[in-house]
Amino acid sequence: MGLFTHDIKTLDDLFVHTLQDIYYAEHQITKALPKMIAKATHPELKQGFETHLRQTETQIQRLEEVFRMHGHSPKAVTCPAINGIIEEANEVAGEVADKDVLDAALVASAQAVEHYEITRYGSLIAWAKQLGRDDCAGVLQQNLDEEKATDHLLTALAERQVNQRAA
Amino acid sequence: MGLFTHDIKTLDDLFVHTLQDIYYAEHQITKALPKMIAKATHPELKQGFETHLRQTETQIQRLEEVFRMHGHSPKAVTCPAINGIIEEANEVAGEVADKDVLDAALVASAQAVEHYEITRYGSLIAWAKQLGRDDCAGVLQQNLDEEKATDHLLTALAERQVNQRAA
Repeated sequence: MGLFTHDIKTLDDLFVHTLQDIYYAEHQITKALPKMIAKATHPELKQGFETHLRQTETQIQRLEEVFRMHGHSPKAVTCPAINGIIEEANEVAGEVADKDVLDAALVASAQAVEHYEITRYGSLIAWAKQLGRDDCAGVLQQNLDEEKATDHLLTALAERQVNQRAA
Repeated sequence: MGLFTHDIKTLDDLFVHTLQDIYYAEHQITKALPKMIAKATHPELKQGFETHLRQTETQIQRLEEVFRMHGHSPKAVTCPAINGIIEEANEVAGEVADKDVLDAALVASAQAVEHYEITRYGSLIAWAKQLGRDDCAGVLQQNLDEEKATDHLLTALAERQVNQRAA
């Protein structure tokens, strides 16, 4: 789907396009996370990123399931939003000199990624229900629940440990 | 602050850098919203975007207050994340042929913007408190509360009206 092609004519088209967008995003996240694991110092943060990398791989499989349930082949479309979020994460990480401050920056970057996913899954689930595809909504809800849980874990880790070490 | 300059040495530096990032983002949002208002068809959605444009102008003033409270001049740094989110919003809008489907897409784009702001204000507030700047945290909390309220309004409007018209 190209720029200004007017290829999205129905809510179903918009649903499939956004599914392709988050499918691309999840793939980019599996590439970004190993770099974040390598940069992280706090053992719980490193472990949290490792767990989320495995979760993301399962989330990609769930997206492929939703594509098939909805009669489409899994396909990715470039998502400038996730590219910008990851570019910003890399830029900030490159500017931080102290390892504890870097951990605080990594938490914030990871939460920006989580919130992007939370908003996209929220829209996708609402549209799936509107389209009478409660089955697709149910699978997408599993991904949304995991993203929200990861976001809460990161908040707790930051407030309990990471930010104190960084201060 | 340039790429890989290691200019962020303390949590305070990270706080100020992220303040500059969201200051840039809020300015970009004041430029993006008039275009979204022009594209929206549903009167409540159009009205919601207009209200949020005025809120964003006040939020910029609050950020300037926080800069001054913390002994800094207001300054923006380019934020690739918000640029990517807005670029994606424009791309998707350009691809939608139907005005009711466009409204659904605009809601989703606006919620992606809100979630970016929610995550950044969340980190800034946690860092401000860790730095003993509860005064700055209090002002930033006002912006966060408005972003969350806007996100909830958009969800309600989508589920109650916009998605049904688009389907």
